Amino acid sequence: MRPSQLEKAIRRKHARLRRLTRSPKKGPPSVSPLAPDAFPGIPHVAGVCFASVAAGVRYQGRDDVMLAVMDPGTSMAGVFTRSSTRAAPVLDCEAKIDGQATGGAAIIVNAGNANAFTGTNGRDAVTAITGAVAAITGIDEARVFSASTGVIGELLAHDRITGKLEELANTLTPDGIERAAGAIRTTDTFAKGAYRQVEIDGQMVTIAGFAKGSGMIAPDMATMLGFVFTDAKVGRAELQSALDAATGQSFNAITVDSDTSTSDTVLLAATGASGVDASDSPAFQDALTAVLQDLAHQIVRDGEGATKFVTVQVTGADTREDADLAARAIANSPLVKTAIAGEDPNWGRVVMAVGKSGAKADRDTLSIWFGDELVAEKGWISPTYSEDRAAKHMAGDEITIRADLGLGLESATVWTCDLTHGYISINADYRS
Amino acid sequence: MRPSQLEKAIRRKHARLRRLTRSPKKGPPSVSPLAPDAFPGIPHVAGVCFASVAAGVRYQGRDDVMLAVMDPGTSMAGVFTRSSTRAAPVLDCEAKIDGQATGGAAIIVNAGNANAFTGTNGRDAVTAITGAVAAITGIDEARVFSASTGVIGELLAHDRITGKLEELANTLTPDGIERAAGAIRTTDTFAKGAYRQVEIDGQMVTIAGFAKGSGMIAPDMATMLGFVFTDAKVGRAELQSALDAATGQSFNAITVDSDTSTSDTVLLAATGASGVDASDSPAFQDALTAVLQDLAHQIVRDGEGATKFVTVQVTGADTREDADLAARAIANSPLVKTAIAGEDPNWGRVVMAVGKSGAKADRDTLSIWFGDELVAEKGWISPTYSEDRAAKHMAGDEITIRADLGLGLESATVWTCDLTHGYISINADYRS
Repeated sequence: MRPSQLEKAIRRKHARLRRLTRSPKKGPPSVSPLAPDAFPGIPHVAGVCFASVAAGVRYQGRDDVMLAVMDPGTSMAGVFTRSSTRAAPVLDCEAKIDGQATGGAAIIVNAGNANAFTGTNGRDAVTAITGAVAAITGIDEARVFSASTGVIGELLAHDRITGKLEELANTLTPDGIERAAGAIRTTDTFAKGAYRQVEIDGQMVTIAGFAKGSGMIAPDMATMLGFVFTDAKVGRAELQSALDAATGQSFNAITVDSDTSTSDTVLLAATGASGVDASDSPAFQDALTAVLQDLAHQIVRDGEGATKFVTVQVTGADTREDADLAARAIANSPLVKTAIAGEDPNWGRVVMAVGKSGAKADRDTLSIWFGDELVAEKGWISPTYSEDRAAKHMAGDEITIRADLGLGLESATVWTCDLTHGYISINADYRS
Repeated sequence: MRPSQLEKAIRRKHARLRRLTRSPKKGPPSVSPLAPDAFPGIPHVAGVCFASVAAGVRYQGRDDVMLAVMDPGTSMAGVFTRSSTRAAPVLDCEAKIDGQATGGAAIIVNAGNANAFTGTNGRDAVTAITGAVAAITGIDEARVFSASTGVIGELLAHDRITGKLEELANTLTPDGIERAAGAIRTTDTFAKGAYRQVEIDGQMVTIAGFAKGSGMIAPDMATMLGFVFTDAKVGRAELQSALDAATGQSFNAITVDSDTSTSDTVLLAATGASGVDASDSPAFQDALTAVLQDLAHQIVRDGEGATKFVTVQVTGADTREDADLAARAIANSPLVKTAIAGEDPNWGRVVMAVGKSGAKADRDTLSIWFGDELVAEKGWISPTYSEDRAAKHMAGDEITIRADLGLGLESATVWTCDLTHGYISINADYRS
């Protein structure tokens, strides 16, 4: 590195450290620096209408409840948190998702209160809400799904929600998806939406959805809610398989802080209104995975205090499980994540994370890249390594870390963000 | 809570948040606020001498290498990191610890460079150092153990160490334990020592040791080194069993950030110089465990950025493994640890951590205490819960969180610290 470059690198680093250490005083930025420019212009999904309202569950002066209503003939699929302390709405969704009931379907979601760890009161609140939605929409209660996100352990004032159902039912519109995406936010700094359109048998189908989540994002989905809608026609079993596969490569492959919430829910509704049968269609599967990955990446981009979007790839593993273990260990390591925040290409911490992961690994066959820069190989630093090139990569907003274990052919990818003062500031004073 | 108490609580919280957010500008405090008042006045351990020197391995103007030499007849036991990317000195110690060689024994330790992920050069450095110690002390090389701590992936300048061996050998003294404890520090803000004396068959034996470690402290010992010496006479196999058991309740029951290092090493030397046979002695085992716990707690008290010492107890588990899983999940959760930093009795995050742990748990039998305050029981907040009393407990330096799973009789205790801006500041700009 020439002196002038070194000086530039040092200045860059100091400027960044000043930003990092200044942020707690001013609080986190109002919108994540990694947010997309705008909410996408999502086309209508035939057979689905949305409505949103400010019910004052916890927040004031903003929408905090959304209702989605699907036409008769809709198939539903769901994936839920595996936490053993699952919230009441999750337990209710799980009980209903495999059901034989037919007809329309509805999803009602509130932000501000997770209705988690609320004892029998929690179950009663879910019943009150889903029962009232059934009564007002004429949809079988067994097809009314609910989700709640926000504070744990406080009673959900369900009457604030049921008191707004008439207004919600009267304002349902196919245009309402962006407002719905906004209504389910908690600590999210931006609303998250995505869509793909794909041709199947010469006809276009649309897959569109929205999600929320910014902290407690971890293996097994963490505090995130995702709602995805398609006008394709897909049988219930095929829809569930498609969702399971897509979730594994998206919501279950992201981590912000390794914590997992009690409320994670992903629901997928296929209205069939396009008349296009997409059961077992690879094109549909790819498009669904793309929508879920887009949403999952937006969640990482809204990670609490995040300033860098990080892709962790592990290749050359003996088994897929080993690849996954190593990738998650790197992505969850506080030392790796703080090094990224400090723009330090600290490959020693990557070695440490691989070592502790439990994955089969051999120091002497391990290679590590930051971006395109080969940093370490055969148990030591690479002879071609340039700290300058690595530092340049670390200075960007999008970081890629790759570790090749040199043992086999399996690989895994996990997405995460850096760990900054912003995370501490947000979480040392937020009752979740 | 009366208004005046509430106001006081708010003022206390704001003052604390100001401290937390101010610390990054000034850097972390020079000595952890949780440090003991002074290094203990450790008595001589018959049969062991220590020497320390400033070798300039990485640090300037401070001791960074220590040598301990034990008399003939000494038994040695060791516990090492399970990382699959273990450092060269660890591999060397593991190869030697079960050996049949007899005579004296030596331990040489440097701070500043971990000699980890240094390829074949790493092995050569270990051989150079242990060979030179053997030559100068007359001890069989198979009985010369070494440990290195500090930066990963940089070549260890072993000649700086071997060049100081004569000075070390000439200054060996039974008084040298406090200086030795200081010499092995890296990011440690204070030297860590502990001892216990115990009567066995009417005769006193001494167990004394020192340790280093402040970050990467996690299950399976993390970046910590511990060296413990006793004048008791204990057979090699019995000494190893005693160390294994004591480590499980001490160094392997602490966590700072869930990260595990490539260099963790605990060595225990029993010189037998007291003539007291302590093989299989429960009193010896208890005293050994107490020394290791004392050292382990000091490591947590020096956790990077730590402002609270946290004891996590899980009781009422179905199996010991479940208890351990749940306790570690609570202790490692960034959300729990940031809540503690913010002095927030956020039991919802404890519920979340138990739920994600993988331990068998039932929301409706789970009870949670902060200090003596029963916060939650039977799936919901306790009717006797006082936020004021809980907040008072959280305002202290020593926090206890207990979760009773209500399922069985097994329990586990893990110690940790809070997660603060100080941790981020230290780790976003330290090449480990």
